[in-house]
Amino acid sequence: MNDVIAPSADAFAVTSRNRVKRMHERGSYDKEAVFAILDAALLCHVAYVLEGGQPFCTPTLFWREGETLYWHGSSASRMLKHLKTGTQACLTVSHLDGLVLARSGFHHSVNYRSAMCFGTARFVEDEVEKRRALEHLVDRFYPGRTASLRPIQPQEFKATTVIRMAIEEASAKVRAKTVADDEEDYALPLWAGVIPVAQVIGAAEPCPRLAPGVARPDNLSAYRPGRRLDETFAEMQNVYRTSED
Amino acid sequence: MNDVIAPSADAFAVTSRNRVKRMHERGSYDKEAVFAILDAALLCHVAYVLEGGQPFCTPTLFWREGETLYWHGSSASRMLKHLKTGTQACLTVSHLDGLVLARSGFHHSVNYRSAMCFGTARFVEDEVEKRRALEHLVDRFYPGRTASLRPIQPQEFKATTVIRMAIEEASAKVRAKTVADDEEDYALPLWAGVIPVAQVIGAAEPCPRLAPGVARPDNLSAYRPGRRLDETFAEMQNVYRTSED
Repeated sequence: MNDVIAPSADAFAVTSRNRVKRMHERGSYDKEAVFAILDAALLCHVAYVLEGGQPFCTPTLFWREGETLYWHGSSASRMLKHLKTGTQACLTVSHLDGLVLARSGFHHSVNYRSAMCFGTARFVEDEVEKRRALEHLVDRFYPGRTASLRPIQPQEFKATTVIRMAIEEASAKVRAKTVADDEEDYALPLWAGVIPVAQVIGAAEPCPRLAPGVARPDNLSAYRPGRRLDETFAEMQNVYRTSED
Repeated sequence: MNDVIAPSADAFAVTSRNRVKRMHERGSYDKEAVFAILDAALLCHVAYVLEGGQPFCTPTLFWREGETLYWHGSSASRMLKHLKTGTQACLTVSHLDGLVLARSGFHHSVNYRSAMCFGTARFVEDEVEKRRALEHLVDRFYPGRTASLRPIQPQEFKATTVIRMAIEEASAKVRAKTVADDEEDYALPLWAGVIPVAQVIGAAEPCPRLAPGVARPDNLSAYRPGRRLDETFAEMQNVYRTSED
């Protein structure tokens, strides 16, 4: 199928690049579905290609503003040259939600949420956009924190590379259900089920060199021990977005 | 630096491909360091390139046997043609261990463990190796489980593609420490510290259609609620490896 489904206000265009081929019933091109998976994460993996065709899969922090994704690197990056002119990239976020144990090897699976985003990655050269992006890298996760910090120094600003990718196409893929065995296998005397997993926040470990009398600020209260990290990040993205409106 | 550090029994060769360029003090080429990061995971991201140079970053389950990585797909995969003859790939595993909040935006970071592995990915065409690999996909995570399951059917075997990649080069990268601020910033009246995060196992949800009298088998007892998932996977890899020796 090489037909293209046109984009709409609510969905990304579907092309041969982002069409979900395997288990397509789990796929979606809905923008809100893609954004929900992205906004629940801090860590993504970016695929890009160097000369000679060697692919790299690099883990990195990222953040979203509307339909644009940002991440950052340093001037020591392998991608430097390619990012000046722009390079094709694929940024993927995955959440593992559960282990699915079935009555046959074939139906073993996992519950997950993943989003793949395609576009052209390039340097942010405009200094105003770059400064804004670096502040948002902090404030998107810790709303209001930038205003309390020691300001960025000129040499830090220079040493940091900010990369921008407008999402041209994207897809979301989700499995969120119990075991799906073949009908005739349910009667077998075997244990089957889902073992849920989640990323959970632990007890904060203050810097041993905290200045006297410094308490944890209220704007970090969402990061409380035992809470799901994905829910916290999603909440912080909403707080941040609302404060920007 | 284009010099190559030769491989040893304990370390991967270092070339321009796997040399850790950014924050190189966090990098290692030690095989045990790479394997420890891989064995603590079930989910990886694989980067590969299609014709036209488009990179893809695909999340998938994987498992390790010695210095070979396996993952699986279906015959609907985009990579089918490329995998027949072999294609360059990069398989990356990342664990997020903590959020690092500093006194400047620049020193905000995360604690993490990541491993990048490079090689040529290709189909497993030999039927004996393919069957063994599919059994190990289950038994590496749930030791001994394959023997209890309904056997794989010929059409399931045919519908599944197993992909193998010998690790040619790899690197590990780890940050595992508290905040590292500029010396003159420690005196600032700002909260700084680490918020730890971990993937944690929840309470098992048995299939609603379990046959009467079926209990959870002892070989799943390692997956107990509240335990770290990475530690559980690492333990299972050891149990599995020991049973194979």
